[in-house]
Amino acid sequence: MEKNDRLAERNRGFFKAKNLLVLNVVSSPGSGKTTFIRETVAKLAGKLRVGVIVGDLATDNDAARLREVGIPVVQITTGTVCHLDANMVAKAAAELDLDSLDVLVIENVGNLVCPADYDLGEDLRVVLLSTTEGEDKPLKYPPMFHSAQVAIVTKSDLAAAAGFNRAQALANLKRVSHHAQIFELSSRTGEGMSAWLDFLAGEWKKRQS
Amino acid sequence: MEKNDRLAERNRGFFKAKNLLVLNVVSSPGSGKTTFIRETVAKLAGKLRVGVIVGDLATDNDAARLREVGIPVVQITTGTVCHLDANMVAKAAAELDLDSLDVLVIENVGNLVCPADYDLGEDLRVVLLSTTEGEDKPLKYPPMFHSAQVAIVTKSDLAAAAGFNRAQALANLKRVSHHAQIFELSSRTGEGMSAWLDFLAGEWKKRQS
Repeated sequence: MEKNDRLAERNRGFFKAKNLLVLNVVSSPGSGKTTFIRETVAKLAGKLRVGVIVGDLATDNDAARLREVGIPVVQITTGTVCHLDANMVAKAAAELDLDSLDVLVIENVGNLVCPADYDLGEDLRVVLLSTTEGEDKPLKYPPMFHSAQVAIVTKSDLAAAAGFNRAQALANLKRVSHHAQIFELSSRTGEGMSAWLDFLAGEWKKRQS
Repeated sequence: MEKNDRLAERNRGFFKAKNLLVLNVVSSPGSGKTTFIRETVAKLAGKLRVGVIVGDLATDNDAARLREVGIPVVQITTGTVCHLDANMVAKAAAELDLDSLDVLVIENVGNLVCPADYDLGEDLRVVLLSTTEGEDKPLKYPPMFHSAQVAIVTKSDLAAAAGFNRAQALANLKRVSHHAQIFELSSRTGEGMSAWLDFLAGEWKKRQS
């Protein structure tokens, strides 16, 4: 773990020198990470250039979904490992043309437990909570939600059908991720995306010297 | 791991001597494990007596949801551990009056990776896949889906709203969980529950000598 923390700091320094804003996107399996990333990149087109590193136990389905819309993607296949680590990210990043990018998005393995402990050298950890998962997840997976700087409620278009208790979910998020910036959106309909994109552009600008 | 495997076999022998059918229910966070278990127990009332062991990193929300409808429940709080193990289950089972039960359901930590490697001494591993998670999960988490004897597609009432591709999901399940019995149901509406309950009653009966 200590070795991972040192390698993560090396990544952080390297990414900073490249003027990159780096996001580590984490969530349960099926919370909509890939669609969220695809729509974020599409809507930033012409403003910020984004590359993606995708982690999965098996298959390159997610990488393929991003690649087919023209996004530069590197796939990491972890086998049975339930998280990415800083070394995997350093190797994958070396395969991207970082000088042609403004933002690097790392899509972690779908898991609300293991990735919490692994710093990848990101600027912002972004945790997704879908309306179909239920409002109690922040309370049940506190290390992950506590460690995030950004919490995003996804699939807002399914909230009514799923009987999502929004007030309770936001209260739970504020309790566990009390320092996190919270957004609510639907990647599918685009509802709520602009506030997130404005925030991202602001974070990127802050880091340019 | 070898120690866990030995303890799991000890559990298996103990549960067999008690004439118990034991299920290990696994899934992503938010696939609907607790509601599924609650409705299964409610619909078995008068036929089979069910006790539950619930594992979570934090909170006893799930245990409380089961206890409030009169189900005998023991809670295991794992802290930062992403799975239950055979030793935890043995200790928790000792807190239940097993002689008054026919079925023991173990609700594992919500995680599609870590619990795959830990035999708990169950008769059947039951993996849940909700329609809102997407049809690709079996391909992306093969060890878990491969290890299950039963695969249940949950939240069938949300399939249309979520744009769930049923044919693709079943094809993926059959590819990875090719030996598994597959059920499709909604715990909320009750649709599809009877086939699952009949199967369960049959599995229980098989084990009575």
